[in-house]
Amino acid sequence: MKVSIIGTGSFGTSLSVVIDDNNNDTLMYGRNQEVVDEINNEHTNSQYLKEVVLPSNIRATTSLEDALVHAELIVLAVPVNAMRPVCREINRLNQTHKKKLILVHIAKGLELNTNMFVSDVIVEEIDAAYIDSLSVLSGPSHAEEVALRQPSTVVLASKYPTDLRKIQDVFMNRYFRVYTSDDIIGVEIGGALKNIIALSIGLLHGLGFGDNTKAATITRGLQEITRLGTKIGADPLTFLGLTGIGDLIVTATSMHSRNYRCGIMLSSGMSLEEAQAEMGMVVEGVNTTKAAYALSQKYNVEMPITNVLYHYLFHGISQEEAFTKLMMRDKTGETEELREILNEQVER
Amino acid sequence: MKVSIIGTGSFGTSLSVVIDDNNNDTLMYGRNQEVVDEINNEHTNSQYLKEVVLPSNIRATTSLEDALVHAELIVLAVPVNAMRPVCREINRLNQTHKKKLILVHIAKGLELNTNMFVSDVIVEEIDAAYIDSLSVLSGPSHAEEVALRQPSTVVLASKYPTDLRKIQDVFMNRYFRVYTSDDIIGVEIGGALKNIIALSIGLLHGLGFGDNTKAATITRGLQEITRLGTKIGADPLTFLGLTGIGDLIVTATSMHSRNYRCGIMLSSGMSLEEAQAEMGMVVEGVNTTKAAYALSQKYNVEMPITNVLYHYLFHGISQEEAFTKLMMRDKTGETEELREILNEQVER
Repeated sequence: MKVSIIGTGSFGTSLSVVIDDNNNDTLMYGRNQEVVDEINNEHTNSQYLKEVVLPSNIRATTSLEDALVHAELIVLAVPVNAMRPVCREINRLNQTHKKKLILVHIAKGLELNTNMFVSDVIVEEIDAAYIDSLSVLSGPSHAEEVALRQPSTVVLASKYPTDLRKIQDVFMNRYFRVYTSDDIIGVEIGGALKNIIALSIGLLHGLGFGDNTKAATITRGLQEITRLGTKIGADPLTFLGLTGIGDLIVTATSMHSRNYRCGIMLSSGMSLEEAQAEMGMVVEGVNTTKAAYALSQKYNVEMPITNVLYHYLFHGISQEEAFTKLMMRDKTGETEELREILNEQVER
Repeated sequence: MKVSIIGTGSFGTSLSVVIDDNNNDTLMYGRNQEVVDEINNEHTNSQYLKEVVLPSNIRATTSLEDALVHAELIVLAVPVNAMRPVCREINRLNQTHKKKLILVHIAKGLELNTNMFVSDVIVEEIDAAYIDSLSVLSGPSHAEEVALRQPSTVVLASKYPTDLRKIQDVFMNRYFRVYTSDDIIGVEIGGALKNIIALSIGLLHGLGFGDNTKAATITRGLQEITRLGTKIGADPLTFLGLTGIGDLIVTATSMHSRNYRCGIMLSSGMSLEEAQAEMGMVVEGVNTTKAAYALSQKYNVEMPITNVLYHYLFHGISQEEAFTKLMMRDKTGETEELREILNEQVER
């Protein structure tokens, strides 16, 4: 298949390796001429994937129109808050070409201010008549390891009933296992909200807390993600799978995770601005904390970790106050709330 | 309360710190005179907890009878396969004293050959007339961190309807959070079987696989634990909690975990005997793999990770064969099986 990848960030670039390995004709689109030239001439993308040499078939362009014309399938691989303008531009260009688009996005976050899911943003910007299908690809997959062909597993979830098999074939191979799901809401929430927990775990690590504390926080983090997700309409079982637990583990326990690293930087006393500047990449967890906090208020869902992180990041409560509060929460039975959620779910 | 801890291993010793901090009168029982003397005279237990100085109130004895006589509450803190003989001896001694016993065990594994739960072993060995209550304390709690008063969270589950509050108070404090549960089967299965996954993750790590592979294995490991557990009568929600996900994370991602370290040693080509000798402590995951494999056969439950590890440890299939097989398993939708399990559960 002819595939265009919109964006030259780390995960998009790593997917170009997978897609090319599967004998698809791969074109990347990026705004930055230097990055595009480096991909075309050096077959590297040193800003995002230092140690990786890309297959020489992979080409890049700064023309979004060329990418649109090339594509039978488009991978939307830009940060959450670039998704709306990019889709708007694709839609504008497509008024001429009138292509029916197969879209797969890989963004993990919620749009700032609107608090919208990425798939909903896409649907707002691209005319329904031109969308053949829209899916999200998500799961425990550090770009660095995918590009090095380390065995990874992800979930592909579609917004519309569609033949996912065809899209699955573009990505699936020996080292990259793609499972399907019809729960796009659950997959998007899992992918977005795990970054909040990763930031928190980074902070806890930096403050000297140990593995016991981190395991408790991951467990309780998954529970608050499940609470919000189920309230919004996700399948609670999604959070037991790769885009729930799986993604949470890989993000919250690995130095490959920029959210985790950002948390560590914050613990050392860096400001949010300094930490984000130092990273040089988008730390989706920061905006997502704001969005998830707003959603927890809107839907009246208890999310203690999100709540504490929100007040710590944006309202200056101290680290000590934040994390003492978090650990001291009272609770005696551990599964009551989840039981209610699942019973409700099954009754539907 | 007067508490006796039976066993001077790492977790039992770390709990002595918690119990003493809560102003209970704590006596430890150990067979080894040197260890007992060291606890009494140096206030350390250097074989198991190198960096920890114990409160000087904590005393130790080599007399099991003294420990029995002392106790209002007994913490059974010996390895799984020592549980039966220790309980038999306690029961024999108690024929004289006729005490009603409040028992809390902390073993994580299944008894070899019988494949029994630890709580069932205890019930077989101690006369029902002398058991006032029997609970298990389990969860993501490396002994090293507990003893250093790092915030930790655990679950206390009881076999009989009983006033858990009283027992909870013995352990619960600022840094040691105790949640209650009535699902002792789930808590015991979670605590036992996570060691199988930890061994597997150690092996994968040693063989050079990355975080994506590990996250996938942890996710799928939790799913096979849930499948077996639910079949035997556990509450599936238990596996979403601290003794499921929480314990799995802490065991499978930390060098504090002896099962994880044992897996790494095996990956370097050490034999099982060499690795266990090098550890100098019981690696419960090895026997548990055998027991869980037997249970998966008995109950006809698919447990691919347990199955592969069993054949690798005990039937000499190669590392390559084992882990290739594991990664290549076919599957397209990820939550079907879990959905069946939960629906069955809710119908009951």
